[in-house]
Amino acid sequence: MSQEQDAAARAAVLDASDPLAGKRAAFHLPDGVIYLDGNSLGPLAHAVEQRMAAVVRQEWGGSLIRGWTAHDWIDLPLRLGDRIARLIGAPPGAVAVADSTSVNLAKCLAAALALRPGRKVIVSERENFPTDLYMAEGLIAGLGQGHELCLVAREDLPGALNDRVAVLMLTEVDYKSGRLHDMAALTAKAHGAGVLTVWDLAHSAGALPVDLSGAGADFAVGCTYKYLNAGPGAPSFVFVRPDLQGQVQPLLPGWMGHAAPFAFEGSYRPAAGIARMLAGTPPILSLAALDSALDVWDDVDIVTVREKSIALGDLFITEVERRCGDFGLSLASPREGAQRGSQVSFHCPDGYAVMQALIARGVIGDFRAPDLIRFGFAPLYLGYRDVVDGAAALEAVLRDEAWRDPAFQNRAKVT
Amino acid sequence: MSQEQDAAARAAVLDASDPLAGKRAAFHLPDGVIYLDGNSLGPLAHAVEQRMAAVVRQEWGGSLIRGWTAHDWIDLPLRLGDRIARLIGAPPGAVAVADSTSVNLAKCLAAALALRPGRKVIVSERENFPTDLYMAEGLIAGLGQGHELCLVAREDLPGALNDRVAVLMLTEVDYKSGRLHDMAALTAKAHGAGVLTVWDLAHSAGALPVDLSGAGADFAVGCTYKYLNAGPGAPSFVFVRPDLQGQVQPLLPGWMGHAAPFAFEGSYRPAAGIARMLAGTPPILSLAALDSALDVWDDVDIVTVREKSIALGDLFITEVERRCGDFGLSLASPREGAQRGSQVSFHCPDGYAVMQALIARGVIGDFRAPDLIRFGFAPLYLGYRDVVDGAAALEAVLRDEAWRDPAFQNRAKVT
Repeated sequence: MSQEQDAAARAAVLDASDPLAGKRAAFHLPDGVIYLDGNSLGPLAHAVEQRMAAVVRQEWGGSLIRGWTAHDWIDLPLRLGDRIARLIGAPPGAVAVADSTSVNLAKCLAAALALRPGRKVIVSERENFPTDLYMAEGLIAGLGQGHELCLVAREDLPGALNDRVAVLMLTEVDYKSGRLHDMAALTAKAHGAGVLTVWDLAHSAGALPVDLSGAGADFAVGCTYKYLNAGPGAPSFVFVRPDLQGQVQPLLPGWMGHAAPFAFEGSYRPAAGIARMLAGTPPILSLAALDSALDVWDDVDIVTVREKSIALGDLFITEVERRCGDFGLSLASPREGAQRGSQVSFHCPDGYAVMQALIARGVIGDFRAPDLIRFGFAPLYLGYRDVVDGAAALEAVLRDEAWRDPAFQNRAKVT
Repeated sequence: MSQEQDAAARAAVLDASDPLAGKRAAFHLPDGVIYLDGNSLGPLAHAVEQRMAAVVRQEWGGSLIRGWTAHDWIDLPLRLGDRIARLIGAPPGAVAVADSTSVNLAKCLAAALALRPGRKVIVSERENFPTDLYMAEGLIAGLGQGHELCLVAREDLPGALNDRVAVLMLTEVDYKSGRLHDMAALTAKAHGAGVLTVWDLAHSAGALPVDLSGAGADFAVGCTYKYLNAGPGAPSFVFVRPDLQGQVQPLLPGWMGHAAPFAFEGSYRPAAGIARMLAGTPPILSLAALDSALDVWDDVDIVTVREKSIALGDLFITEVERRCGDFGLSLASPREGAQRGSQVSFHCPDGYAVMQALIARGVIGDFRAPDLIRFGFAPLYLGYRDVVDGAAALEAVLRDEAWRDPAFQNRAKVT
């Protein structure tokens, strides 16, 4: 048996005993595609398609304004927050769904800074996802209160936490390398210095077990269009530790965060609890998509997801290194599965063109400057055979130098 | 011929010569419903239903992450901004679609305050829509720079504009009474005192001609789920006067407002033009609905819409006063059509229950505390006969005291 056949056979055995294998049928995956970019945009579930048709035609079309009560639209931001809470180790009443991750991050940062008025430093990581850093910059400039953003390397984070620091703002899973922070340890270290934490769970929710309560995290935000499969640009979620909620005076206190939105009072009174983090009118069509997308998680244990995620990533690393070692690739992600999120990246010469050529063959990952090819492993709809076939396709692209085709050389707007 | 027959006959004549009558077929209007609440939530157009099915199945489902380029998702916020610009008298490149009206208002207020650093007052109207006032309060508290919100009665606005004032923030059409501000006159008055203007066009866009350029307006925000029919909680639009755009340092500088979002630079560089008002990842499903909903406007002259809107409102006032004068109703909106937006409100004893009883008869308006029953007249899908029938139904509810039914007495969460 060739190495090739051997790898395929072993993958088939793993797929046959995969406790999540049945979930794949819930998703619409185009023919001829191996989708390794669910960390950017999760796929459509069949049930979501049906729910969208119903919310458009029956709920909006049929009920019109009456939908707010007849279909409980008004409850969606908090009801979906509670559904997500289960996936991130938060109690009921601690999570709401609203706005974008960027906007929710600004809300949390502003709230955290206001809770530490004597401290002027936000600590983050130089490699944090740019929008997080931009939002901190914008808030600092807008507030004009002499705050500063202190960006350090990952290993210098603990040492940067002192009594001048108001907030530690981090993304749990690095968007490029997939490297995980130890949320519990860093939160404990932060609290030891009187520092509040704002965690971005963009690449965590639905990818691995998160325990916000166990870690004692203060604030968190996250994304529903990656591993939660709620559709392109789906709304974000925001978490505030229950005992802090009453102290938050929202920077963006829209009417949906008012204690009595439909009393139309002339002055703001914050709603009790997490509802005060809401601002404008909730986006019902998008929330309905999320509601339906969350159904697939109802009978899933995130620990099972995590085990398979690590196994898929480990297999991909093994296969790519075995097949593509001659082409200058080098692993950019932690080799140790427990230190990775649900993605694997490689440094790759001509990585942009290589990825375009790979996508043209139906294996969809993405590229992150300057030279990373990035692959996400979403255990709900990917199998071990997909991983082997994806690695084989990458090898073929490199071996044939398919990526030299001029069509793959142009930088697209989004990669 | 009875008065009743006479009114119906005259309405039929008006409907027969209505240049917008053909637009009604574009919309899904449930059987047995006369929909006088398009000022809260516009109805579903058939084309929107089809487009939503396509964006969900073909674009998201079929293209997955490739949709950002394959279907130009990434261009939607600015492309749709330009489509809306035409309806509000703004030039291309002056409008973007993003976030909620509340969040966009905060962006504009923050930008305007930063442009007038020596001035500490935001002037608005006591009766302005609450979320606008709340956002101003939140921003003032968050900035902690000694700003104050000065709320005055409508007639005192011009006198309140002086060299301590940074911003005049107003909603062009009052949400309760429908009374219009003179945007051009107030903006000129504001500019005369060095004051910047932030206009909320929530009840203006698609309801009447707006001329932001002609008025010299500085900032504006507005809503797409009312007269633009983009669905419940659809995203908002934001306008910045072109010559001011380069001076705006966004409070919420998300990656979509960066000069090069996909270069993942470590520090924020604002995009040229209105794009810097974008923050997080755009909500594609919602934007697609808006894109399709705007199609109905392509061959519509907003002046024709305005003429019919006033005629519908005038007819409703005449019919309601003729039929319901004995029941204690009194007009809360300007009698003069040119001073009204596209809605008419009446003070009505037991107004909440009356509206519930009316809705139960299929005539849908809404209630605003303490005693207003409110009716919107969207000329694209309403005819003169609807108005006569709506007034007749209101008369019947009052005459039969149908509203005394206990089922109509409970306050719903949303009205």
